[in-house]
Amino acid sequence: MTTELVSVAGPDIGATIGLVLATGVVALLFGVVQTFGLMKADQGSPAMRAIAAAIQEGAQAYLKRQYTTIALVGVVIFVLAWVFLSDLAAIGFLVGAVLSGAAGFAGMLISVRANVRTAQAASQSLQKGLDLAFSAGAITGLFVAGGALLAVTGYYAVLTLGIGLDGTSRDVIDALVALGFGASLISIFARLGGGIFTKGADVGGDMVGKVEAGIPEDDPRNPATIADNVGDNVGDCAGMAADLFETYAVTVVATMVLAAIFFAGTPWVDRMMVLPLVICGACILTSIAGTFFVKLGKDNNIMNALYKGLIVTGVLSVAALAAVVHYFIGFDTPINYAGAPQAFTGMTLFYCGLVGLAVTAGFIVVTEYYTGTGKRPVVSIAQASVTGHGTNVIQGLAVSMESTAIPALIIVFGIISCYLLAGLFGIAIATTTMLALAGMIVALDAFGPVTDNAGGIAEMAGLDKDVRHTTDALDAVGNTTKAVTKGYAIGSAGLGALVLFAAYTSDLQYFSANAAPGSFFEGLGELTFSLSSPWVVIGLLIGGLLPYLFAGMGMTAVGRAAQSVVEEVRRQFRENPGIMQGTVKPDYGRAVDMLTKAAIREMVIPSLLPVLSPIVLFFVVYHIGGAVPAFEALGAMLLGVIVTGIFVAISMTSGGGAWDNAKKSFEDGFTDKDGVKHFKGSEAHKASVTGDTVGDPYKDTSGPAINPMIKITNIVALLMLAVLAHAG
Amino acid sequence: MTTELVSVAGPDIGATIGLVLATGVVALLFGVVQTFGLMKADQGSPAMRAIAAAIQEGAQAYLKRQYTTIALVGVVIFVLAWVFLSDLAAIGFLVGAVLSGAAGFAGMLISVRANVRTAQAASQSLQKGLDLAFSAGAITGLFVAGGALLAVTGYYAVLTLGIGLDGTSRDVIDALVALGFGASLISIFARLGGGIFTKGADVGGDMVGKVEAGIPEDDPRNPATIADNVGDNVGDCAGMAADLFETYAVTVVATMVLAAIFFAGTPWVDRMMVLPLVICGACILTSIAGTFFVKLGKDNNIMNALYKGLIVTGVLSVAALAAVVHYFIGFDTPINYAGAPQAFTGMTLFYCGLVGLAVTAGFIVVTEYYTGTGKRPVVSIAQASVTGHGTNVIQGLAVSMESTAIPALIIVFGIISCYLLAGLFGIAIATTTMLALAGMIVALDAFGPVTDNAGGIAEMAGLDKDVRHTTDALDAVGNTTKAVTKGYAIGSAGLGALVLFAAYTSDLQYFSANAAPGSFFEGLGELTFSLSSPWVVIGLLIGGLLPYLFAGMGMTAVGRAAQSVVEEVRRQFRENPGIMQGTVKPDYGRAVDMLTKAAIREMVIPSLLPVLSPIVLFFVVYHIGGAVPAFEALGAMLLGVIVTGIFVAISMTSGGGAWDNAKKSFEDGFTDKDGVKHFKGSEAHKASVTGDTVGDPYKDTSGPAINPMIKITNIVALLMLAVLAHAG
Repeated sequence: MTTELVSVAGPDIGATIGLVLATGVVALLFGVVQTFGLMKADQGSPAMRAIAAAIQEGAQAYLKRQYTTIALVGVVIFVLAWVFLSDLAAIGFLVGAVLSGAAGFAGMLISVRANVRTAQAASQSLQKGLDLAFSAGAITGLFVAGGALLAVTGYYAVLTLGIGLDGTSRDVIDALVALGFGASLISIFARLGGGIFTKGADVGGDMVGKVEAGIPEDDPRNPATIADNVGDNVGDCAGMAADLFETYAVTVVATMVLAAIFFAGTPWVDRMMVLPLVICGACILTSIAGTFFVKLGKDNNIMNALYKGLIVTGVLSVAALAAVVHYFIGFDTPINYAGAPQAFTGMTLFYCGLVGLAVTAGFIVVTEYYTGTGKRPVVSIAQASVTGHGTNVIQGLAVSMESTAIPALIIVFGIISCYLLAGLFGIAIATTTMLALAGMIVALDAFGPVTDNAGGIAEMAGLDKDVRHTTDALDAVGNTTKAVTKGYAIGSAGLGALVLFAAYTSDLQYFSANAAPGSFFEGLGELTFSLSSPWVVIGLLIGGLLPYLFAGMGMTAVGRAAQSVVEEVRRQFRENPGIMQGTVKPDYGRAVDMLTKAAIREMVIPSLLPVLSPIVLFFVVYHIGGAVPAFEALGAMLLGVIVTGIFVAISMTSGGGAWDNAKKSFEDGFTDKDGVKHFKGSEAHKASVTGDTVGDPYKDTSGPAINPMIKITNIVALLMLAVLAHAG
Repeated sequence: MTTELVSVAGPDIGATIGLVLATGVVALLFGVVQTFGLMKADQGSPAMRAIAAAIQEGAQAYLKRQYTTIALVGVVIFVLAWVFLSDLAAIGFLVGAVLSGAAGFAGMLISVRANVRTAQAASQSLQKGLDLAFSAGAITGLFVAGGALLAVTGYYAVLTLGIGLDGTSRDVIDALVALGFGASLISIFARLGGGIFTKGADVGGDMVGKVEAGIPEDDPRNPATIADNVGDNVGDCAGMAADLFETYAVTVVATMVLAAIFFAGTPWVDRMMVLPLVICGACILTSIAGTFFVKLGKDNNIMNALYKGLIVTGVLSVAALAAVVHYFIGFDTPINYAGAPQAFTGMTLFYCGLVGLAVTAGFIVVTEYYTGTGKRPVVSIAQASVTGHGTNVIQGLAVSMESTAIPALIIVFGIISCYLLAGLFGIAIATTTMLALAGMIVALDAFGPVTDNAGGIAEMAGLDKDVRHTTDALDAVGNTTKAVTKGYAIGSAGLGALVLFAAYTSDLQYFSANAAPGSFFEGLGELTFSLSSPWVVIGLLIGGLLPYLFAGMGMTAVGRAAQSVVEEVRRQFRENPGIMQGTVKPDYGRAVDMLTKAAIREMVIPSLLPVLSPIVLFFVVYHIGGAVPAFEALGAMLLGVIVTGIFVAISMTSGGGAWDNAKKSFEDGFTDKDGVKHFKGSEAHKASVTGDTVGDPYKDTSGPAINPMIKITNIVALLMLAVLAHAG
C-alpha cells in the first residue's frame, strides 16, 4: 500500500510514526523526572518508614509471585501462538504481556514510595498532600499511556517500516491482535488476583477490626492492617494500571485493524491506520500539560482541583484533535468505505472524536453523581443505614442497579451519533479519543490508593488526627475517581463493542473469501447474525452468562479470603491478648502470606473462563450444527458478553463507590432526615460499614475485572479465526 | 381456513375446543370442591380466629385498593385499545385483565382462610398441616390454570366459532394479543405492589423486631407482624397467581399467533392453533391427578412428598402429550412451514413437548440445589455468616450470580434441541408444554405463604412450640418451591424469547407486505436484525437496561417502605413501653395502612416503564434514523430485555431463596466448619438475618416482577405494530 501513497499528497508516515514514538518517550521521561522529584520528598519519622517498608516488602513479594504464576500460563500461550499462528504473533503476545505487567509493576513501585511521603506532606498542608499523591498518580498514568502507545506503535513500526510487511497484511493484523491479547491476559489476572488480595484484606480486616473489636480502620493492633495497605498497591494500583494499559492497547489495535480492513486498497489506508496512534500521541502531551493545573482553589475543594487538570487536558485535546485531523487527512475531503452510511470527512471524524470526549465527560459526571458524598444516592444509602444493616444493603443494591441506566444511554448516544457521522470507523475513532486521555484519567485514579495508604500509615504511626483527616478527605475523592476510571474503562468497552464485533465479522468475511478447500471457512457465504437465528440467541445468552458467572466467582473468592483473614485475626487476638492492649506487635506477615496464597490460587480459574469459553462454544456448536451456526453463535457471544457485562460492571463499580462514601459520611457525623446526627461508632455507622464491606469486592474485584474479561473473549475469538484459517 | 379443513381427515375443531373448555371448567370445579373441604376444617381457638380475621381484613382492604388503582390505568388503556385498535381487542384486554385480577383475588381469599386452619392442623400432625396447606395451593393452582385456559380458549371460541372470524385474521390475533396484554398489565402491578407491601412489612418488621428488639419473628408485640402476614397473602399469593396467569395466557397466545402465521393457508392451521389449548387442557387433568399423590413417606420429607405429586403429574403429562399429538396430528405425517430447518412430524413435536418437561425438571433440580437447606450454596452462606454481616451478604451475592449459569445453559439446550427438532414452532410447543403444568407448579408455590402465615398465627396465638416447628419445616420447603416457580416463569420467558421475537418479525413482515401508501410500513422490505447494525446494538443495550432500572426501582421502593415501617414500630415501642412488656396490644392497623399507601404509590411508575419504553424508543429512533432503524431497534430491545432480564431475575430469586434458607439453618443450630454450633440469637444468626432481609426484595419484589415486565415489553411492541398499521 505504501507505493500508492506516493500518488496522494499526504504526510510522511515514517516521520509521523517517529513523532508518535517520541511522545511515548516524552511520557516516560516525564514519569522519570517526576519520580526523582517524588523520591526527594521527606519520608517522615522512623516509625513511618518502618511501616512503609513493611508495605513495600509485602507488595513486591506478592506481585513477584503473581507474575511468576501468570508467566506459567503466558509461556504456554506463547508456545501455542508460535505453533498455531506465527512467530510474529507470539512475539506480539509477549510484548503486550510484558509491558502490561511492567506498567502494573511500575505503578506499584511508585505507589509504595509515594504513600509515606504523602502522609508526611499531608502533615504540612492539604495542598502538599494532594501535590505529592497526584504526582504519584501522574507518573503511573503516563507510564501506562506512554508504555501502551510505545508498545503498539513500536511493534507496528518494526513490522512495517522495519521488516517491511504490508500494514494491512494478516501477519501484521494477527501480530497486533496478539499484542492486545497479551496485555488483556495479564490484566485480567492482575485485576482479579490483586482484587482478591486487597479486598480479602480489607473485608476481613474491617469485619473483625471495626465491627467486632471496635478499633478504627488501620489501627496498628489489627494484624490485617499491613495486608490491607499492601492490597491497595497491588490491587487498586498495579491491577488498575495493567487494566488500563490493556484497554488502551486493545482499543488502538482494534481501530487499526478496522482501518486496515475498511481502507484496504485505497490511498488512505496507511494514514487511517496511523491516525489512532497520532491522536493518542497528541493527547499524551495534553495530559502532561493538564497535570500542571491540578491546584486547590480558595474553596479547598479537592475534586475541583482535579477537575481543573482534567478540563485543561480536555480542552487542549479538542484543539490537538482538530490539528491532527486537519493536518493528517484534511477537513473537507470526502472519504468513503464499504459499510459507511455515507462518505465522511475529516470534519465529521473530528466530531466523532468530540463525541468520545463528551462520552468521557458524561461518564465522569454521572459517576460522580452516583458515588459522590452529599449527592442523593450516597445520602440515600447513609439514610438507609439508620434503620439497619439490611436496609443499607438494599438501598446500596438499588443504587447500584439504577446507576447503570444513564451510562447505558450515554453509550447509545455515542454509538448512534458516531455511526451517523462516519460509520463504524467513526465509532472506533471516538473510542480511541476517549482512551487517548488515559494518561490523565489514570493519574486521577492512581492517586487514590496512595492517599488511602498515607492514611493508614498516619494512623499506624500515631500521627496527629489532623493528618488522618487530610488523607481521609483525599481518600473520599479517591473513591469517586476510582469509580470514574472503572466506568470509563467499561464505557469504552461498550462504545467499542461494535468495533470489536466488526473486526470479527470482517475477519470472517476475509477468511471466507480466501478459504482453503476443506477448511472451516469453505462455502461459508455471508453471515447475517440475525436475531431471528436461534444460534445468535443462544450466543447472546451464553455470552450474557459469562459476566455473571465470572463476577460470582470473584465474589466467592473474596468472601473465602476474607473469612480466612477474619479467622486468623481472631486467632491472634485470642492467643495473644497483649495485641489488643497495644503491648505486643501483631504478626502482620502471616496475613500477607495467607492472602498471597489465596489470591494466586483463586485468580486462575475465573481468569481462564473468558479464554476458554469462546473456544468451547465454537467447537460444541460446530459439532451440533456445523460451521455457520458455530460462527454465528460465537459472534453473538461477543455482543452478549458486552450487553450484560456493561450492566454488571457499572452496577458493581458505582454501587461499591456509593457504599464506601456512604460510610465516609458518618465520619464527620451524618444528619438523618429527622435531624438526628449519627457519628462513627453508632449503630447506623456499623450498618454503613456492612454496606462498604459488600461494596468492596463489588467495586475492586469483580466489577473492574469485567472490562478485561470482555476484551479477552473478543480477542480470543479473533485469534481463533486466525488459527482456524491457518489450520484449514 | 375452516373450509379447507373438510378436505383433510382431522378432528372436529369445534368439539375439541368444547373439550378444552370442559377441562377448564373441571379445574374450577375441582377448586370449588376442595374449597368446601378446606372451609370445613377446624379454625382453632378464638385467639387464632381473631388474628386470622385481622390478616383477612388487611389483605382484602389492600387488594381492593390495589385493584381500584390498577382499574384507573386499565380504563385508560381499554379506551385507547378501543380507539386505536378495535372493539374486539379492547374486550380481549378487559377479559385478560379482569381474569388475571380475579385469579389473584381468589388466591388471596383461599390463602387467608387456609392459614389459620393449617396452623390448627399442624398442631395435630405434619401430614395434616401439609394436606391442608397443599390443598389451598392446589385450589389456587387450578384456578389460575383453569381460568387462564378458559379465558384464552373461550375468547378464541367466541371470535371464531361465535362471531365466525377466521382464526388467522388480524382481528383475532390482535384480540388475543390484547388479552395477553391485559393479563400482563395486571400481573406487573400485582407482583410489584404486592411485593412492595409484603417485603416492606417483612424487612421493616424483621429489622426492628428481630435485630433491634431481639424478639422472634411474628412476635405479637411487634406492631408490623399483622402487616407481614397480610403481605404473604397479597404478594406471595395474589401477586404470584396473577403472574402465572399472565405467563400461561401469554405463552398460549404467542404459540397460537405463531401457528396462525406459520400455517396460514395450509390445512393444518386450525389444528395447530388449537394444539396448545389441547395440550394445556390435557395437562390440567394430569395436574389434578398429581395433587392426590402429595403424601409424606416414611422419611417425613416434605420436599419428597411434593415431588411425588409433581412426578406423577409429569409422567402422566408425557402420556397425555403423546396421546394428544397422536390423535390431533398423527406421529408420522411430515409437516412443513416457512422458516423451519426441515419438515417436522407429530413425533418430533412430541419430543419438543418432552424438552419442555425436561427444561421444567432441570429448573426445579437446579433451583432446589441453589436454595435448598443443606446444599453447598446455602451452607456456604450460613458459613459466611459466622464471620459477619458483610461476608454473609458477599457470599449471598456470589451465589445469586453463580446460580444463573446452569439455568441459562438449560434454556440454551431447550432452544437448540427444539429448533433442530421442529423449528420455532417446536420451541413454542415446548414452552406451552412447560406452562401446561402451571396448575401443579402454582400449587407447590401457593402452599408456601399459607404455611408462612400459619407459623405467624401459631406464634401470635401462643400455640405450642412444636406447632411452630412443624410450620417452619413446611415454610423452609416453601422457600425453595417459591424460588422454583419464579425460575420456571422466567425460564419459560427465556425459552419463549425467540417465539415472541418471531411473532414480532412475522407481524412486521405481514404489515410490510400489506402496507398502505404513506404508512410506517411502506417500502420497509425485509429487516435482518443483524448484530452488525448499530440500531440493533442500541436496541439490545436499551432493552438490557430495563430490567436493571426496573429492579433498582423496586428495591428502592421496598427500602423506603421498610424504613417507614421501622420508624413506625420504633415510635410505638417508644411511646408505649407497655407493648414490649406484653401488657398493651400494639396498633397493627397503622402499619397495614401505611404499607397499603406506600405500595400503591410506589408501584405505578416502575410498572409503566416497560409499557412506555418500547413506544418512546420507537418514536425517538424513528425521528433520528427513520422506519427501518426504528423497527430494528425495537425488535432488538425485545431480546435485550430478555438477555439481561433472565440473569437479573434468576440471580434475584435464587439468591433470595438461598439467603432465607441460610437463615433458617440457624434455627436448629448451624454447625460451622470448625465444628462450632451457632444458634438462634448468636452473632452468626444475626448476620444471616441481614442476608435474609436483603434477599427479601430480591426474591419477592424485583426478581419475580421481571417476568411480567419482559412480557409487557414484548406485547406492547406487538400491539404497537398493530396500532401503527391501523394508523397508517
